Amino acid sequence: MDTESPHSARAGERVLIITGDGKRYLVRLQPGVQLHTHLGIIAHDDLIGRGLGREVQSHLGHRFVVVRPSIHDLLMRVKRRSQIIYPKEIGMILLKLDLSDGRRVVEAGTGSGALTTAMAWAVQPRGHVYSFDIRDDMLAAARQNLQANELAPYVTLEQADATQPLPVTDADAIFLDVREPQDCLQSACDVLAPGGFFGSLVPTTNQVSVLLGGMARYPLTDIEVLEIMLRGYKPVPGRLRPKDRMVAHTGYLIFARKISPLLEEAKAEESSKPH
Amino acid sequence: MDTESPHSARAGERVLIITGDGKRYLVRLQPGVQLHTHLGIIAHDDLIGRGLGREVQSHLGHRFVVVRPSIHDLLMRVKRRSQIIYPKEIGMILLKLDLSDGRRVVEAGTGSGALTTAMAWAVQPRGHVYSFDIRDDMLAAARQNLQANELAPYVTLEQADATQPLPVTDADAIFLDVREPQDCLQSACDVLAPGGFFGSLVPTTNQVSVLLGGMARYPLTDIEVLEIMLRGYKPVPGRLRPKDRMVAHTGYLIFARKISPLLEEAKAEESSKPH
Amino acid sequence: MDTESPHSARAGERVLIITGDGKRYLVRLQPGVQLHTHLGIIAHDDLIGRGLGREVQSHLGHRFVVVRPSIHDLLMRVKRRSQIIYPKEIGMILLKLDLSDGRRVVEAGTGSGALTTAMAWAVQPRGHVYSFDIRDDMLAAARQNLQANELAPYVTLEQADATQPLPVTDADAIFLDVREPQDCLQSACDVLAPGGFFGSLVPTTNQVSVLLGGMARYPLTDIEVLEIMLRGYKPVPGRLRPKDRMVAHTGYLIFARKISPLLEEAKAEESSKPH
Amino acid sequence: MDTESPHSARAGERVLIITGDGKRYLVRLQPGVQLHTHLGIIAHDDLIGRGLGREVQSHLGHRFVVVRPSIHDLLMRVKRRSQIIYPKEIGMILLKLDLSDGRRVVEAGTGSGALTTAMAWAVQPRGHVYSFDIRDDMLAAARQNLQANELAPYVTLEQADATQPLPVTDADAIFLDVREPQDCLQSACDVLAPGGFFGSLVPTTNQVSVLLGGMARYPLTDIEVLEIMLRGYKPVPGRLRPKDRMVAHTGYLIFARKISPLLEEAKAEESSKPH
Repeated sequence: MDTESPHSARAGERVLIITGDGKRYLVRLQPGVQLHTHLGIIAHDDLIGRGLGREVQSHLGHRFVVVRPSIHDLLMRVKRRSQIIYPKEIGMILLKLDLSDGRRVVEAGTGSGALTTAMAWAVQPRGHVYSFDIRDDMLAAARQNLQANELAPYVTLEQADATQPLPVTDADAIFLDVREPQDCLQSACDVLAPGGFFGSLVPTTNQVSVLLGGMARYPLTDIEVLEIMLRGYKPVPGRLRPKDRMVAHTGYLIFARKISPLLEEAKAEESSKPH
Repeated sequence: MDTESPHSARAGERVLIITGDGKRYLVRLQPGVQLHTHLGIIAHDDLIGRGLGREVQSHLGHRFVVVRPSIHDLLMRVKRRSQIIYPKEIGMILLKLDLSDGRRVVEAGTGSGALTTAMAWAVQPRGHVYSFDIRDDMLAAARQNLQANELAPYVTLEQADATQPLPVTDADAIFLDVREPQDCLQSACDVLAPGGFFGSLVPTTNQVSVLLGGMARYPLTDIEVLEIMLRGYKPVPGRLRPKDRMVAHTGYLIFARKISPLLEEAKAEESSKPH
Repeated sequence: MDTESPHSARAGERVLIITGDGKRYLVRLQPGVQLHTHLGIIAHDDLIGRGLGREVQSHLGHRFVVVRPSIHDLLMRVKRRSQIIYPKEIGMILLKLDLSDGRRVVEAGTGSGALTTAMAWAVQPRGHVYSFDIRDDMLAAARQNLQANELAPYVTLEQADATQPLPVTDADAIFLDVREPQDCLQSACDVLAPGGFFGSLVPTTNQVSVLLGGMARYPLTDIEVLEIMLRGYKPVPGRLRPKDRMVAHTGYLIFARKISPLLEEAKAEESSKPH
Repeated sequence: MDTESPHSARAGERVLIITGDGKRYLVRLQPGVQLHTHLGIIAHDDLIGRGLGREVQSHLGHRFVVVRPSIHDLLMRVKRRSQIIYPKEIGMILLKLDLSDGRRVVEAGTGSGALTTAMAWAVQPRGHVYSFDIRDDMLAAARQNLQANELAPYVTLEQADATQPLPVTDADAIFLDVREPQDCLQSACDVLAPGGFFGSLVPTTNQVSVLLGGMARYPLTDIEVLEIMLRGYKPVPGRLRPKDRMVAHTGYLIFARKISPLLEEAKAEESSKPH
């Protein structure tokens, strides 16, 4: 047994166990613990120190698969205490906010930490996420999620009201996931470096209108509003067809860039001139 | 003028210039060169060494915005000589294939390098993309794109036929962007580590059926088929509505995990026992 | 009380009762009978002979609405023993098959009679629907539905296998709602007048491909394949947004026109010439 | 040649001519006139008195198809001077407003008469459409369309402002296709019989919110808001896939039923009691 293999499971690690009929269990491995399912029992001890990415058998003889969870698996399993953001939106947010290694990104509205998790995953090892929420219970839940996913070192969680100034400057990007993002636009613009990426998600069309109305008063440009729909198919080669039902709506995504307007530019240059 | 600012533009850097009416120019800054637009001229020399993320004025007095392009901007501007993958698909691919810092990922079908670019962006600084194509002209175009985007160090481009064995092993993920991915399944499974992520995109339903049929003969599990639709809205607060037309189809995404089946597991253990 | 009003309810009539929280009951009024709901009881006798289109009170004081059901209401309440066709598809079928007063239309695959009902509703008073099914139980269920909706006089229901010749000629339109419509194409073309409208609905992409392949061997032209998606919104003025979930798929609609090809035209003219 | 056949073309009749490459011409047959296309010429005289639903040859030898247009064909060819309603919406409107033979329906906002045409087609021979517009040019265009489609006898077109009382009562249904339908709600409710069907289409989310807000002050119940998306497929059996682009938005459909509220009911009964 190769306990040194990079793919073998460690005690304390999270693994994804998928039963033959597609049920998914995200499990933190602990010596002596058992996973009980409708198709039989798996002892954690039979997984610890063994390779991941393989079939195992339950005590009833059913075949399960044990794999390392992807970020997608983790996001789909975040406990949703607040507004939902699905991977279909998160993938687009990461690209639009240009979040990869090294970026410094601010999130207002930590919620249960799904987007926080994804952002940390994207900007590590050299970037950082600053995430703010007014509710302590949300921050605690997010902290737990981030620790479980080993992403806590890349995130600063802090209790703060984003309608008031936030203790970050020169950020590469900000995402507002709060009920009234229009009230956080001054904070957002103060936080962002020139050219910084702005994003927000709101569930209703009224909120989109109000937010767009507010944005017009700030140095935000290249404004885009969009929604993303995902349709799953039944993966049967001879009878390929979409699944019967789908998620109809998560929210509307709003994106923009913060810019220094010409007037300010002129002033800045003026003041930097030698006297 | 702060030529040392991290946000100021360097000669040779790519910047995005957006006119007041929304036209977008992705430009490599070169001393002495000018950008000619329908709303006037901008001299590159007026941008080099100056801050990004700001408004500038054309010689006709029109206001443009000059910003650092996001990965999304870069992907939308990749010259499309082959099958199209849009950011809406790419965001999902990065999450499903779990591509962040440190991953080793294989791509069969470099095409014009849009996905290659996104993958490199996602796995740097410590990961690597191995991308194969049978067409040299495709590889050359992709190489140019990657160099322009400063992502070339994270990518190995190589001429190869993915229906034959590929020179990579123990990869974290593979993506097949070829016309007949069903013929590359043996290569794909050989390349992947146990638990490795498999993805593919095909434009027709017939190809999905054939690919799914083929996948059934390989140790691929947790199979998913999906499509993603993106609808843009006109960002007018008082008259919010979707744009008149949208992209109706890019392709179908297929995802799976490679696993070591029970039988092989048993054999592997058998052979590793002390004699 | 105006028992002669055109809008007052008769014993034996079907009415739609909607509770304050949106539950919908399609009820055939019978003297002495009561409707029991979670919000209280309504006696049919309180509705018979009274106007429709009004509020009534349950014995618990809750307000219900009593209205004449629309064809849409009837279609949404057809018991679905077989493949589903929703109003979103039916509306398009009626327009594409040009079904209004006076048309003679054939349906192969009566199923539970939802489409039969809609077709009869559209072609009455002077048109007629000929609907065939191989299953007697389906025909019986459809007959019951049509009688309940007072559309039985406009429909001939008959047990028949549509892969064999059907006893109708010179029809304006045909719709195939069977599992293997490709096997009914000869029957369909024999049934249709020149220029007649052809339609079919199949749930899987494989069936679309097989049907299209078959259609290429028959004098069917102007072929179209489409799907229709309907998304409902929560009708809240200040918080307008789509409902959380929606039907992702009913089936693919295929339409065409039967034509007399040039060669046959020439022959027909030849044979009609005086000798 | 059977000039008496019900399917042979008459001078003055509208026929649809489809070229081999899918171009569609809606043509009113006139003796001596020719249709000139990129694939050759067709003389109307070669069509008049001959059967429809057949192939013909242009003077260049290309095959065209000549068929009777469906209502769908007619609707897709209505000249659009005003807001667009597509067949995908119209099919749903006919079902939701329960429009078949015998119904009396009011339309406020004739526009170019596309919906007027469809409504007349649906309610003939014994029903009637009352359509109002404030613009005389719109009414004239609609009149021309209806005459060309032989539906004029079933429609009364009249210049009127729907924010003011309309000269119809006890209508089965009303559809508001005007810019500010919220201002026409009193007229609409006055026009409708109890239980009458209410419908409207507006292009922006703001208009939906305003209309819903207004509707709350009228005896309108069973309110529904929805949108319909149609996606076409390329009808190629071996390479089945959606077309590249689609219409992303026409408008939001709003439906409701007019009811007599309890209070009014009580009053009405009171006043009808014998003294």
